[in-house]
Amino acid sequence: MDLHLITGGAGFVAVNLARRLLARGDAVLALDDLSRGRRELVAEFERHEHFTFRQVDCSNLDELSTAIDEAGSQVAHVWHMAANSDIPAGVADPRIDRDRTFQTTFAVLEAMRRHQIPELHFASSSAIYGDMGDCEIHEDIGPLQPISNYGAMKLASEAQIRAAVEAFLPRADIFRFPNVIGVPATHGVIFDFVHKLRATPDRLVVLGDGTQQKAYLHVDDLIDAMLHVSGLDGRYKVFNIGPKDEGVTVRMIAETVRNRVSPGAEIVFGQGNRGWVGDVPRFRYSTRRLADSGWAPRLDSSQAVMRAVDEIARAELKD
Amino acid sequence: MDLHLITGGAGFVAVNLARRLLARGDAVLALDDLSRGRRELVAEFERHEHFTFRQVDCSNLDELSTAIDEAGSQVAHVWHMAANSDIPAGVADPRIDRDRTFQTTFAVLEAMRRHQIPELHFASSSAIYGDMGDCEIHEDIGPLQPISNYGAMKLASEAQIRAAVEAFLPRADIFRFPNVIGVPATHGVIFDFVHKLRATPDRLVVLGDGTQQKAYLHVDDLIDAMLHVSGLDGRYKVFNIGPKDEGVTVRMIAETVRNRVSPGAEIVFGQGNRGWVGDVPRFRYSTRRLADSGWAPRLDSSQAVMRAVDEIARAELKD
Repeated sequence: MDLHLITGGAGFVAVNLARRLLARGDAVLALDDLSRGRRELVAEFERHEHFTFRQVDCSNLDELSTAIDEAGSQVAHVWHMAANSDIPAGVADPRIDRDRTFQTTFAVLEAMRRHQIPELHFASSSAIYGDMGDCEIHEDIGPLQPISNYGAMKLASEAQIRAAVEAFLPRADIFRFPNVIGVPATHGVIFDFVHKLRATPDRLVVLGDGTQQKAYLHVDDLIDAMLHVSGLDGRYKVFNIGPKDEGVTVRMIAETVRNRVSPGAEIVFGQGNRGWVGDVPRFRYSTRRLADSGWAPRLDSSQAVMRAVDEIARAELKD
Repeated sequence: MDLHLITGGAGFVAVNLARRLLARGDAVLALDDLSRGRRELVAEFERHEHFTFRQVDCSNLDELSTAIDEAGSQVAHVWHMAANSDIPAGVADPRIDRDRTFQTTFAVLEAMRRHQIPELHFASSSAIYGDMGDCEIHEDIGPLQPISNYGAMKLASEAQIRAAVEAFLPRADIFRFPNVIGVPATHGVIFDFVHKLRATPDRLVVLGDGTQQKAYLHVDDLIDAMLHVSGLDGRYKVFNIGPKDEGVTVRMIAETVRNRVSPGAEIVFGQGNRGWVGDVPRFRYSTRRLADSGWAPRLDSSQAVMRAVDEIARAELKD
């Protein structure tokens, strides 16, 4: 049985990862400062004998180190998921991305050096690429010009990890996440639309003109891909993760949510095809490296959206 | 007359930049925490009516902001040169690069937002590219995998600047520096060799086997290139700066220093072609973008080394 440390352990993807690791017989130490993660998301695991949750600020090396010392056995893997996930908040105050996205990576690497933990799995992001227009975005493309502080601090984290692999870290995987959907949702376009319609059931106001197109991956497929990549050979592996299709429009998502939650509502679109600073309107994301490694998603973007809308609506509207 | 703020203002390149800006009639506010910069390097300007030096930690937004407030007139340009320049020190303790290289950039950007300073000129580095083998390294190449914390934090700085241009900063230039040589030298291979020979005039011990090949630019050419690029159109400009040749070997440098400083000395080479972690053995650096923009260096690597050896030997051996 391996002990896996998950930073940002009370977040959306982390909870799905913990469930899968526990199911296959591994042990999990989940750390989260609960600034955005929510304690109730890990409630389902709290009685599991191989699951431990601790409230820890993962940007603080001493707190992190104490939690590792007290884990009782040697940590074999770190899944570094802690980050600020609110892109507009980071544009308004860059300290949020610096402290929660970059500084957590910095502290995690120092803790791994200190405690001789050999494998890091890092949740990076397609946001590191910036706006590449119609270019097909493969893992080795340049230039890398992130247009949000979120993307900048994910790129900074990747760079620091790469240098650590050169200096002391035996293995690291970099997962460049797409838009990931599913439950337990805490933010994101589907979550927002469900809540807007709950507040005003006759009207759904959408930022932008609805033509923005993005690819979406269901979280079950994401976890599957991460575990697949973590089992591949290589000291430093970088993988785009995503579906094979070019995605669906905001209009399609708005209509799917409307039809599920409040079929009579009017959808009101805004102007332009960008929702906020740092939002990239369209994106051709190559997942060929992942496909060539022998992995394929079960759901395409459209199927992922339909399933996630149903899951999120059920979770959010139950009370 | 424009007021130019230079961070890391008591460093090698900064002093040469200040001299040139003052000579053309601009005003200079030089800030430096004097952790590596040396006060005596700016002594020649201290009586100049348009030069001000202040000891400021540029990673501290409040200190930086106070210095800008007290400047007396609006700052028009920031030349951000403050950084840790000791790559091995940053490998041993990553906080050095994080605080002096990345956090200074972070604070400079916040200060520019607060004080509405429109133009940033940033001293980045070829270290952001990592080890690209025999690939020709142009500005848009990928993947970017720096192998030192120094390179990682320069890349993090570029990313944060790019996001700032998206959010609020009117203009930024990114200069990806090559190896720069000249006076006043404070570190670097020529400086080290001169001092080694001063200590043991009969023997020069060289890290590595001497086959490492690097391109070198003389600091006079570097300043010239930076001023040239800063005058070009564009909101976000990225330029490799360097000579057109593929460089000279460590052996050539060792011999040039030996011949100038202590002609009878024996040169003792080590093993392997890397000097330290993070040192890239060979490097094909494309400066075509710079050439296409209408600029050419006056000295090639070999001429730059010969001139810098003479300048550094004269400066270091005078007492």
